[in-house]
Amino acid sequence: MFNRPRLLAPGPVETDPRTALALAAPQIHHRTPEARAALQEARSRLGQLLGGGLEVLITASSGTGAFEAAMVSLLSPGARLVCAEAGKFGERWGKMGEALGYTVDYVRAPWGEVLDPQAVAEAVPGAAALLITHSETATGVLHDLEAIARAARAANPDLLILVDAVTSFAVAELRPQAWDLDAVVSGSQKGVALPPGLGFVALSPRALDHLASGGPRYYFDLARELKSQQKGETAYTPAINLIQALNLSTDRLLALPLEELWAEKARMNAALLAAGEALGCRVFARRPSPAVAALVPPEGVSGKQVSEALKALGARAAAGQDAYKDSMFRISLMGYFDRYDALAVAGLLEDAFSALGQRFERGVAVAAAWQVFAGTQVVGRRT
Amino acid sequence: MFNRPRLLAPGPVETDPRTALALAAPQIHHRTPEARAALQEARSRLGQLLGGGLEVLITASSGTGAFEAAMVSLLSPGARLVCAEAGKFGERWGKMGEALGYTVDYVRAPWGEVLDPQAVAEAVPGAAALLITHSETATGVLHDLEAIARAARAANPDLLILVDAVTSFAVAELRPQAWDLDAVVSGSQKGVALPPGLGFVALSPRALDHLASGGPRYYFDLARELKSQQKGETAYTPAINLIQALNLSTDRLLALPLEELWAEKARMNAALLAAGEALGCRVFARRPSPAVAALVPPEGVSGKQVSEALKALGARAAAGQDAYKDSMFRISLMGYFDRYDALAVAGLLEDAFSALGQRFERGVAVAAAWQVFAGTQVVGRRT
Repeated sequence: MFNRPRLLAPGPVETDPRTALALAAPQIHHRTPEARAALQEARSRLGQLLGGGLEVLITASSGTGAFEAAMVSLLSPGARLVCAEAGKFGERWGKMGEALGYTVDYVRAPWGEVLDPQAVAEAVPGAAALLITHSETATGVLHDLEAIARAARAANPDLLILVDAVTSFAVAELRPQAWDLDAVVSGSQKGVALPPGLGFVALSPRALDHLASGGPRYYFDLARELKSQQKGETAYTPAINLIQALNLSTDRLLALPLEELWAEKARMNAALLAAGEALGCRVFARRPSPAVAALVPPEGVSGKQVSEALKALGARAAAGQDAYKDSMFRISLMGYFDRYDALAVAGLLEDAFSALGQRFERGVAVAAAWQVFAGTQVVGRRT
Repeated sequence: MFNRPRLLAPGPVETDPRTALALAAPQIHHRTPEARAALQEARSRLGQLLGGGLEVLITASSGTGAFEAAMVSLLSPGARLVCAEAGKFGERWGKMGEALGYTVDYVRAPWGEVLDPQAVAEAVPGAAALLITHSETATGVLHDLEAIARAARAANPDLLILVDAVTSFAVAELRPQAWDLDAVVSGSQKGVALPPGLGFVALSPRALDHLASGGPRYYFDLARELKSQQKGETAYTPAINLIQALNLSTDRLLALPLEELWAEKARMNAALLAAGEALGCRVFARRPSPAVAALVPPEGVSGKQVSEALKALGARAAAGQDAYKDSMFRISLMGYFDRYDALAVAGLLEDAFSALGQRFERGVAVAAAWQVFAGTQVVGRRT
């Protein structure tokens, strides 16, 4: 079709074509000064995106593998963990803990709702770790990690706080040092806008002190990785091509102060939500994450129908997950997008809803999306 | 420099530029018909390169991660394993088994020597599994896997035979079905000539029967992957870009009957060895693997000096490993190379040895390399 394809899923996301092209560069060996420099630069850039103060390690795996690396490297077998969850991804870490032989207690909230800091604080005394998802991609909720971590830390000063920041990393406000987080995990196909294949784990000094006390592990042994990666090496063959590409894709993110990056990402997502609301959708998340807009279509329209109508226009949205498979659709500008793409998506939504027989004043979603940016500076404008 | 760079390490290897360029293609989502078709095609192609009869699963990890997946998915905690090793990579699987809580007995041979089938057969009664490296990249030895597997199977019919085929897959004769192997592991940056980031595990029917009895696992749960990958899905985000690229890079390999591919790869490596011998080097491996030529330079020259002299000419060789770091150098045409590249490498070796003050008749290594192909058909010639 004439329309160009648009990947609007909450990961994998679109990559800057200049970054993508670098993936076609001749293969380098990972035991070379060039590769060591690339790894050190990538670790440093990821650390900057977290505001500094943590030790960043990179795995050749998805983010799920990186979370497993944090868990098995920091926590002794049989330890009691508290999993705070309100969605499919939060739930995953509890299942992982159970599969790997830990004792897991749950603090839950319904999908779309936020986790209660007080409930978490009541659960963590005596626990070795808290497992928590910052941006729940399944529901579009950004949990108040700062408040939850503060309450949990007050209730258990020795607690290790392991954070799934898969879709909040380089997207939402995230201050691991100020919030006293211990392991912050993400992956390459989200905020840093690369193809999938890299996991990231950022460790606090407290976490580093626990590296000797983890469980049985080999591929995901972060104690060994730390020793290697501090020298620019990795214990096993790294996905070096993606590491090189990361040093290009993060240029655009690091050109802005973190606060500006977070604010613009939040506005871009707010614009998607505003466009959806203008078309009669309901915002599913109590506290929306800037990583993904989860929208419930008006009565009589299913999420699947919206996804299909968008697909007919060339755009790839995500459906809901599990019980919400048909009742919502999810769209995201987490990747290589800017504020003007929010207008394009608003236009796509209007045409999709129109094709589904919905009636509204033409331009209403586009105007609502555009209004979000009114009075704000264009971010990173060249002068 | 005017010379073009040549990556002659035994992995990562050079990639076909057409395959590399495909890595720059727009990102696709992995939950799409296009991605499902790519995964199924990749699994099928990898299966064909093994001669069929096995179920191939793909991991987002290096080959080491894929080996861990096989181990934890097939073997119960505390099981006794026999690790047959004669080099750094063979040794790794024993260390992995110990780290993951198995009991490991070793059958060893000195570096450069071959493993004795009879010694392995004597060790395996009562063991749950044999861990063995087919092509030992550290020493350049191709172990006689067929004979070892036959002897081991006779001594213990229920044995699971887990094979590190990281550098033999699509390079050396490897017949998992005929040889009755249970798990055959490799990775993307070797014979299939892709960037690193994918692991492969091919499982026999016997192995599939053991998927319920493995140890604690989550990211590397092959039972779960099997269920997903049979539907073209993966349990967690796959490195889909590399999977798509694999379906291009394997075109060239599958265009030949396996026997021709293996024979040509063996000739190409034999040509490297012949070139080295013509310059006074000693072949380190008792039974050379077609994946890598491990050469001991003549008296007075170190492996490191040869590597440095090659580097000055633009070519990247590998040093020896561990105790053999300085005493050998390793070169490989495992990746996107053909027989004529063996001549180029022979020429590079002549100029490198000449720069190191060695005296020999000009052309002697090139002639020796070329002589290896005398009387053989050009492989896959277009008609």
